[in-house]
Amino acid sequence: MILFTSDYTEGCHENILNALNKTNMVQTVGYGEDEYCALAKEKIKAAFSLTHSDVHFLVGGTQTNATIIAAALKPYQGVISPDTGHINVHETGAVEARGHKVLAVKNENGKLCAKQIEELLTSHNADESKEHTVMPKMAYISFPTETGTIYSKAELQEIYNTCKKYGIYFFIDGARLGYALASGANDVKPCELENLCDVFYIGGTKVGALFGEALVITNDSLKPDFRYMIKQSGAMLAKGRLLGIQFSELFTNNLYFEISKRAITLAEKLKNGFLQKGYELFVNSYTNQQFVVLSNEKAAELRESFGFELWVKIDEEKSAYRFCTSWATREENIDKLISCL
Amino acid sequence: MILFTSDYTEGCHENILNALNKTNMVQTVGYGEDEYCALAKEKIKAAFSLTHSDVHFLVGGTQTNATIIAAALKPYQGVISPDTGHINVHETGAVEARGHKVLAVKNENGKLCAKQIEELLTSHNADESKEHTVMPKMAYISFPTETGTIYSKAELQEIYNTCKKYGIYFFIDGARLGYALASGANDVKPCELENLCDVFYIGGTKVGALFGEALVITNDSLKPDFRYMIKQSGAMLAKGRLLGIQFSELFTNNLYFEISKRAITLAEKLKNGFLQKGYELFVNSYTNQQFVVLSNEKAAELRESFGFELWVKIDEEKSAYRFCTSWATREENIDKLISCL
Amino acid sequence: MILFTSDYTEGCHENILNALNKTNMVQTVGYGEDEYCALAKEKIKAAFSLTHSDVHFLVGGTQTNATIIAAALKPYQGVISPDTGHINVHETGAVEARGHKVLAVKNENGKLCAKQIEELLTSHNADESKEHTVMPKMAYISFPTETGTIYSKAELQEIYNTCKKYGIYFFIDGARLGYALASGANDVKPCELENLCDVFYIGGTKVGALFGEALVITNDSLKPDFRYMIKQSGAMLAKGRLLGIQFSELFTNNLYFEISKRAITLAEKLKNGFLQKGYELFVNSYTNQQFVVLSNEKAAELRESFGFELWVKIDEEKSAYRFCTSWATREENIDKLISCL
Amino acid sequence: MILFTSDYTEGCHENILNALNKTNMVQTVGYGEDEYCALAKEKIKAAFSLTHSDVHFLVGGTQTNATIIAAALKPYQGVISPDTGHINVHETGAVEARGHKVLAVKNENGKLCAKQIEELLTSHNADESKEHTVMPKMAYISFPTETGTIYSKAELQEIYNTCKKYGIYFFIDGARLGYALASGANDVKPCELENLCDVFYIGGTKVGALFGEALVITNDSLKPDFRYMIKQSGAMLAKGRLLGIQFSELFTNNLYFEISKRAITLAEKLKNGFLQKGYELFVNSYTNQQFVVLSNEKAAELRESFGFELWVKIDEEKSAYRFCTSWATREENIDKLISCL
Repeated sequence: MILFTSDYTEGCHENILNALNKTNMVQTVGYGEDEYCALAKEKIKAAFSLTHSDVHFLVGGTQTNATIIAAALKPYQGVISPDTGHINVHETGAVEARGHKVLAVKNENGKLCAKQIEELLTSHNADESKEHTVMPKMAYISFPTETGTIYSKAELQEIYNTCKKYGIYFFIDGARLGYALASGANDVKPCELENLCDVFYIGGTKVGALFGEALVITNDSLKPDFRYMIKQSGAMLAKGRLLGIQFSELFTNNLYFEISKRAITLAEKLKNGFLQKGYELFVNSYTNQQFVVLSNEKAAELRESFGFELWVKIDEEKSAYRFCTSWATREENIDKLISCL
Repeated sequence: MILFTSDYTEGCHENILNALNKTNMVQTVGYGEDEYCALAKEKIKAAFSLTHSDVHFLVGGTQTNATIIAAALKPYQGVISPDTGHINVHETGAVEARGHKVLAVKNENGKLCAKQIEELLTSHNADESKEHTVMPKMAYISFPTETGTIYSKAELQEIYNTCKKYGIYFFIDGARLGYALASGANDVKPCELENLCDVFYIGGTKVGALFGEALVITNDSLKPDFRYMIKQSGAMLAKGRLLGIQFSELFTNNLYFEISKRAITLAEKLKNGFLQKGYELFVNSYTNQQFVVLSNEKAAELRESFGFELWVKIDEEKSAYRFCTSWATREENIDKLISCL
Repeated sequence: MILFTSDYTEGCHENILNALNKTNMVQTVGYGEDEYCALAKEKIKAAFSLTHSDVHFLVGGTQTNATIIAAALKPYQGVISPDTGHINVHETGAVEARGHKVLAVKNENGKLCAKQIEELLTSHNADESKEHTVMPKMAYISFPTETGTIYSKAELQEIYNTCKKYGIYFFIDGARLGYALASGANDVKPCELENLCDVFYIGGTKVGALFGEALVITNDSLKPDFRYMIKQSGAMLAKGRLLGIQFSELFTNNLYFEISKRAITLAEKLKNGFLQKGYELFVNSYTNQQFVVLSNEKAAELRESFGFELWVKIDEEKSAYRFCTSWATREENIDKLISCL
Repeated sequence: MILFTSDYTEGCHENILNALNKTNMVQTVGYGEDEYCALAKEKIKAAFSLTHSDVHFLVGGTQTNATIIAAALKPYQGVISPDTGHINVHETGAVEARGHKVLAVKNENGKLCAKQIEELLTSHNADESKEHTVMPKMAYISFPTETGTIYSKAELQEIYNTCKKYGIYFFIDGARLGYALASGANDVKPCELENLCDVFYIGGTKVGALFGEALVITNDSLKPDFRYMIKQSGAMLAKGRLLGIQFSELFTNNLYFEISKRAITLAEKLKNGFLQKGYELFVNSYTNQQFVVLSNEKAAELRESFGFELWVKIDEEKSAYRFCTSWATREENIDKLISCL
């Protein structure tokens, strides 16, 4: 069985594994205050040309989202998200569990747009009884989106400008950031992210690491005391070095960007395979997640040899399915899959 | 510099590292539903002779404590803890962040005793205005305690009996469970734990794993839907296999118990070294944490070669310090330390 | 200026005021354990033919909603609500502040229907990764709805049956319950409510009292320890007698139902006035809230003499406005308003 | 039966009742934006010589405490309180329910002192792992204390200076503020309170009103958006006018201070009665709450005619009891009680 079910089906990139092996018996202090974490932060700052940001390491994505959102918002404030946003539908209410409403707005192609934010804020601010409603104070998107689409630099800039205009934060969930940056459709450079939002994170779990997300806080007002939040959320790993070692490897010799690129190349090969064999794409994705429409029969047939995820049932005859590539995907497996189409 | 600062200064036991290497490119499903997790659960059930418990893997201790406590309590209920309890002093209010008061009672030698629980419950139940106060609904201890003391089987049994008498839960934090079970002063067998409490956890982070805690839920009423709680707490690792692989190794060939035993043996050697050189023990610990009184001068001198933690300042001249051994401690380093005393 | 802005523009019905005057210097115990509260509960039990319910008094509606919802749900559970539901849009995230997601579904005429609940539950239960999403555990409606529509007995029964089928709670917010029951379009009898839901409340604030809501818990599993929840929510009035005195009056000689009926009669008169003068209704409401479309000019003209609320802007030329009657509305004022149309 | 059980055994002062009667059918807008609330705020500002404070009305004490504390603190911050503080023991964990730890320190005579705050902050700030512990960010006291003692102006000033030195807030719970200010032992003037803390409240429930607390926010950083917090907490009364009407009366012709003074005079008469009859005081209280030691027999005898509260059991033979006077206490009842001693 060959799995295309997700981008976290294997362990980690061999460079990371080698580094974990090599450093295993080195003694360090705990909780992320070791030299590996310090080094990894420097490498991330270099890779993203960060000039004024704090970098923190957390273990997973849901945890990272809930922690930074809880840190940023007051009890009566909420976070705007496309209705398909990960925080809105796939985190078991982790944001609400920390007290905040997710203000879901209808996605367009998986995205939130500046105009929707402006409308929400304008409407809130004009409401004479606005204290009876949740105050929008942050906009959340993921880049790429849950459905594999990506924002253009102009779109991100417009969202950020709108957020600044209304005094709210802009947070970019980058669980799959590498795949967005490596996409052929992308025009955002790593060095531009710091100036396009208040906070973003660089996903490790889905891009070559065993686990780990690097949160980059660019807005000064979100920086103070963030380690308290990490600890309270249960996100402060005793052996914090594990995060430092992993991210240090990911940002040595451009590894993060290169393995992302490779995944994209294979995803494009798969997409072309679908198209050439006459399959209909469910979403025209330029990232490592490809969504294709399959008849029930074809899906059943493929499932004998391949793992992939039901995305949405279309009708009694057919559904859309998700196929993921990753840093770990073997080209021969893509070929096998295409040959079965 | 040789570190005795904690039991999480290195990576993981070589068996675990080998297993991570060997399995790295194997594909599995995510979120702990893979075969490694299933296997690890079986091994834990065998090692602790579990007959009616659910086992779940989480990433860290603070996270595990906060998650099970939040799962067990209603909004108006609190958890009884010795004032020195980890949840009361070293988790940045993670229990309160999920809405629950920690009902701290004065520790005796790091411990909570059945009588204190009985008094609290009797007093609460007799209060005519009891709805104005937090209802105690769980007793929390750690085994061993924060100060290296351990509960006897009789003490645990008495606490559990009292909890059952008053209809409250008994939760044992086993972040360092291996070291308690391996202690020369211990009379609790692994196979007895299931019948001594409602829920406990088997610490991996401090006993040979890179990270990970195995939560054992013995009380049926705490079992339903616990995976929702794990996910919401940000404790559900995408590559959940990492926990399965690690715990599977820890419970192969008694590894968990043997490496714990080794740490205890070295801790005893160190303790005897302190005593033979005429140092005063701050606590008479039988576990892997040793607490000794050092003059300021001696401490400064030792700090040139060794790392260890200030525990509590006693007066202007001297303080108590903590020295930890672990599965990873080298005997030669213990010898070096003793020779410097 | 004559206000039709809401149903809480005056103090309270004169019977209540008289009772407050008469009892003012009587000494009682506090926190709702006095004889007036006991009496009021008996009268409510009689008026609604309650055979197996607990009655509790709280101060306001948002408080009541948030308190019972927090009492009913576990941390990973959410409450289904029509998107226009009061808890979803007009309580500043009070439900989320206590940790729970409001699962908003598109309203049909202000209502939630059984089929929507069934779809949500079916979909949730069929999801292989359901622990990544919030578990629906309660359905919330208000009766009447925010837009003045009411559920038929058959609709309520169908919702309740669906809730029972899927093991979730059904909660009816009755902030304006009197006006629903008194509506000409209503076919639900007071004595039927206990068997149509798990919990409902009888609004006092908007139906003749200074303040106060009587929560009726019919489902045994929601009953235990509810006074702890009231106290923790800050909803336990020291002079709890005030609630007892008021509800005792409201349920003496059918006062609650009669003043509700009177408000409905005047609302119908107003509605007929609108229709006869050729105005378009925005919603065909049969309760004390009437929604009419006015041109900007007409609205401005009326605003010189009358207060009423902008409901929703329709276009540049016209908007929908809400006019409320209540137990306190004077018929002469309705006449004056109609004469100005 | 004559009740001395609390200071909330009756309704309200007759001036308030008259005002409620007189204004009953006046129409106003809701939610505290009416003219009565505006007037009451002006009167409070005059009575306390407020120059830079915001005044808000809430319904009850627990609600007020929990709301302002939740508004002031970030998720990882806690509030320092004497262990006997109302928020620590008599609010069913309302502060924790909103996510914050109450950092209880041992009371001295019911009080918290500046030195304790300083020690806690010094210790926290010096802790190298301080992010593992809750950050103290507010000091809470009640004035008078739960046991009837009062702080001197110098004590309050010293606490506030310490709070400012360490950058934390100082919050004074004034549920019984009138009785503190009227106490013969008091040296704090109403006009001085604004400059002695960051926020305090003027209790109405226990000092002549049916209910209601007036929160005075003096620190600018606590002011923004506070009405959102009130609404979310379920503390925004629809008929907010009721709070305005009541506080307006309380601060007309010094009523608040005069009825407080009267209660103190009667409490002193009672205290002298106890002393003259040879009873032992449990606390030397100068406020409206008197604490006396009674033998079991004497208590039982008195209980045939009088209501009063068991405070604490001293031994098998005797206990301490609390007797409260209030704005409503009749002198003849004090005389009757003394005659029975």
